[in-house]
Amino acid sequence: MLTYTFEKGGGVPLYEQLYRRIRDDITAGRISCGSKLPSKRALSEHLGISKVTVEAAYSQLIAEGYIYSVEKKGYYAEKVSLAPFAEPETEKAPSLRGFAADIKSNGVSLEHFPFSVWSKLMREVTLNYSRELMASVPFNGALCLREAICAYLAENRGMRVVPSQVIVGAGTEYLYGLIIQLLGFDKRFALENPSYSRISEVYKAHGVDCIYVDMDGGGVKTRALEKSCAQVIHISPAHHFPTGTVTSPKRRSEILEWANGAADRYIIEDEYDSEFRFTGKPLPPMQIADVNNKVIYINTFSKTIAPSIRISYMILPPPLAKMFEERLGFYSCTVAAFEQYTLAKFISDGYFERHIRRMKRYYKLLRDDIIADIKASPIAEKSEILEPDSGLHFLLKLKTQKSDAELSRACADKGIRIAFLSEYYAGKGGEEHLALINYSGIGREDFQKALSCLEEQV
Amino acid sequence: MLTYTFEKGGGVPLYEQLYRRIRDDITAGRISCGSKLPSKRALSEHLGISKVTVEAAYSQLIAEGYIYSVEKKGYYAEKVSLAPFAEPETEKAPSLRGFAADIKSNGVSLEHFPFSVWSKLMREVTLNYSRELMASVPFNGALCLREAICAYLAENRGMRVVPSQVIVGAGTEYLYGLIIQLLGFDKRFALENPSYSRISEVYKAHGVDCIYVDMDGGGVKTRALEKSCAQVIHISPAHHFPTGTVTSPKRRSEILEWANGAADRYIIEDEYDSEFRFTGKPLPPMQIADVNNKVIYINTFSKTIAPSIRISYMILPPPLAKMFEERLGFYSCTVAAFEQYTLAKFISDGYFERHIRRMKRYYKLLRDDIIADIKASPIAEKSEILEPDSGLHFLLKLKTQKSDAELSRACADKGIRIAFLSEYYAGKGGEEHLALINYSGIGREDFQKALSCLEEQV
Repeated sequence: MLTYTFEKGGGVPLYEQLYRRIRDDITAGRISCGSKLPSKRALSEHLGISKVTVEAAYSQLIAEGYIYSVEKKGYYAEKVSLAPFAEPETEKAPSLRGFAADIKSNGVSLEHFPFSVWSKLMREVTLNYSRELMASVPFNGALCLREAICAYLAENRGMRVVPSQVIVGAGTEYLYGLIIQLLGFDKRFALENPSYSRISEVYKAHGVDCIYVDMDGGGVKTRALEKSCAQVIHISPAHHFPTGTVTSPKRRSEILEWANGAADRYIIEDEYDSEFRFTGKPLPPMQIADVNNKVIYINTFSKTIAPSIRISYMILPPPLAKMFEERLGFYSCTVAAFEQYTLAKFISDGYFERHIRRMKRYYKLLRDDIIADIKASPIAEKSEILEPDSGLHFLLKLKTQKSDAELSRACADKGIRIAFLSEYYAGKGGEEHLALINYSGIGREDFQKALSCLEEQV
Repeated sequence: MLTYTFEKGGGVPLYEQLYRRIRDDITAGRISCGSKLPSKRALSEHLGISKVTVEAAYSQLIAEGYIYSVEKKGYYAEKVSLAPFAEPETEKAPSLRGFAADIKSNGVSLEHFPFSVWSKLMREVTLNYSRELMASVPFNGALCLREAICAYLAENRGMRVVPSQVIVGAGTEYLYGLIIQLLGFDKRFALENPSYSRISEVYKAHGVDCIYVDMDGGGVKTRALEKSCAQVIHISPAHHFPTGTVTSPKRRSEILEWANGAADRYIIEDEYDSEFRFTGKPLPPMQIADVNNKVIYINTFSKTIAPSIRISYMILPPPLAKMFEERLGFYSCTVAAFEQYTLAKFISDGYFERHIRRMKRYYKLLRDDIIADIKASPIAEKSEILEPDSGLHFLLKLKTQKSDAELSRACADKGIRIAFLSEYYAGKGGEEHLALINYSGIGREDFQKALSCLEEQV
């Protein structure tokens, strides 16, 4: 029978520990697909824990699709093993090229995706939507998905938006391109400095004028924004990458006021990981405070579900939504109908919220572990953890004489991919020695490899 | 037992007639999902036809996924019924807004898609590719799909291209945008006049200089192209929409020669429906004759499979493929991994070719029926069919005093959507009274409605 020992006083409830152990055994294939689990009573007696605890763990496993129950028979493990790729795949995505550990890529933990639930929904969609799957969806996305997004945003972010404001598209990069086409190639776009390089690459590839505005601890500097003569500012106020800065309420009003200063000024509010804030109540999106139709809100399912699910969306203020339909409504929606219907069901049936809750718990535990590992390592004396309460990454300030370039080269030689804040600055870089700890796509073991490598270098 | 009568001497083989009748009964739900079909011998005796004929029809139905056989038991109908949409869908795609018959939209016949095969492949992908489905694919698409596309093009179009030349993207419109980003916003793009309005809309939305070059019966006029000072020409040499013109071999060499005249000149060869040519051997793509890396070849699965499957691809000449990776390789591929793996299997396992063959046969029969209907109708005396051997549309020249605008308005009032060639010209229109007969998305019955409406007007 399944035999586990539990940590006491570790802050993790017993049922949660049991749930995690069984889940890990299933995903690792140690409990094989279709095999029967012990009855709740048998397991509680065997492990010396209460039946209620086993019940809670089993319920969680059922809800997340790891096990299923057969009436009057018992509980069985679902098929969630990660089968090896059947086809020869000689080319690899850059992030996989030969690195033993990669804490530069801000990936997504794939093992915890409720794959069996997703497959079940795919099967349902296949059976019930055959005609819709073949027909085109409207330019802005399938209505059922746009409705599900509106309901989700109302419930979770307090946003009151209607489906006609939603534009569904194949990834945020594609949506940035649509925004440029909507607002005009003659506009000057301002980006936060530092910022995620992918954003500026899209603007540059479109040949538009694109400049940087420096940030301080409160967000993008409003005085510099005024001076920049930009019409559009692209920001991530909820949780900035890579600094982790949360734009302050005061700064938010200033930026809104800046936008209100001219008819052609707009704010792109890019909320790429607002779902994963671990402490305190997140600030409401700027979209809510916007009464002058100035904020274009963008979010994506690539971070919350999986990067291969290419579905992002933006919420346009009503006048821009109207303009979009007139000028760009000729475009076909870039997301396949099948994925749209599956995602709509995933959201409407409550799986998405449950998934977010579960991932949030998982990421929080992982982050706690990783921070504990740093504190227990010899690097603790030579470093300082910054912004530890932010989202899916934090900064580690290293006390060293070496340059960031030297450090990342030395780590790369040992198979460890690591990035520093200074790489994300336009022009002359910002402060050195701030290592970016992107832990969302990495396991604890790989992180420990990265940590010991870093420790050798500083 | 199934009882059918057959037409003799109609040019349609008996097995084909039987196959179509059973298929239609399955898709219409008259033969319900899972129900057993008569044995081959029983049906041949019942209908008074040979067992070989029934065998041929059953084989066809199995190959296309309408029925399946269970060893020693017999044949059963697959689940292919078109269930009604389960969710309230208040908004509709423009082409569905209230028209009784729409021969303007160049849609795709959805009833004949091998949905059960596609679902089977989706299930297989779900089971065997769980890890890949969650990971991102390379910027240019999943390798297995790019390989399948290369093999298909080699086999069917005689093209010798390698996977690194392929860029997979969510629809041709998206690919046009990538081409603009690749070649530069400072380039002048030339389009055929007339042309499909969606193409010019994409160029205009990107703010690039975009001009028109007139066509004659051989294709785009080379002298006018020279004079236009364009760097890039976007053409559909295999089968031009809306005129149906096939660019002549002589004109093709002239256009290639034009491109060779300057380093920054390129040809976009847009083959949107080359699969559906009904008479004669199609000309090889210009891509094959291109020895100077001047041709960007584009094709799509929206027309051959379904518009909701948002997968298109382009083949770049090697130097442009290299430039693409350097400048635009940061982009994530816009097609979901799941759709890419499913389509790769659909092609590699031979279903795609079979589907094309089947659709070609279906469209040919439909076109023959429609042309017969025109010839049998009173409109025959007041019209002339032009280019009847071209692809999925042809032109009907009407003898009438009314203007095209009057005619389409009068038809629209009666719920019939129809387009005229003159609408597709930039500036002052071309010849009037050429009605466009797009039959690929319409049934014969609906076409007859459109025809009698048109007949009342001329």
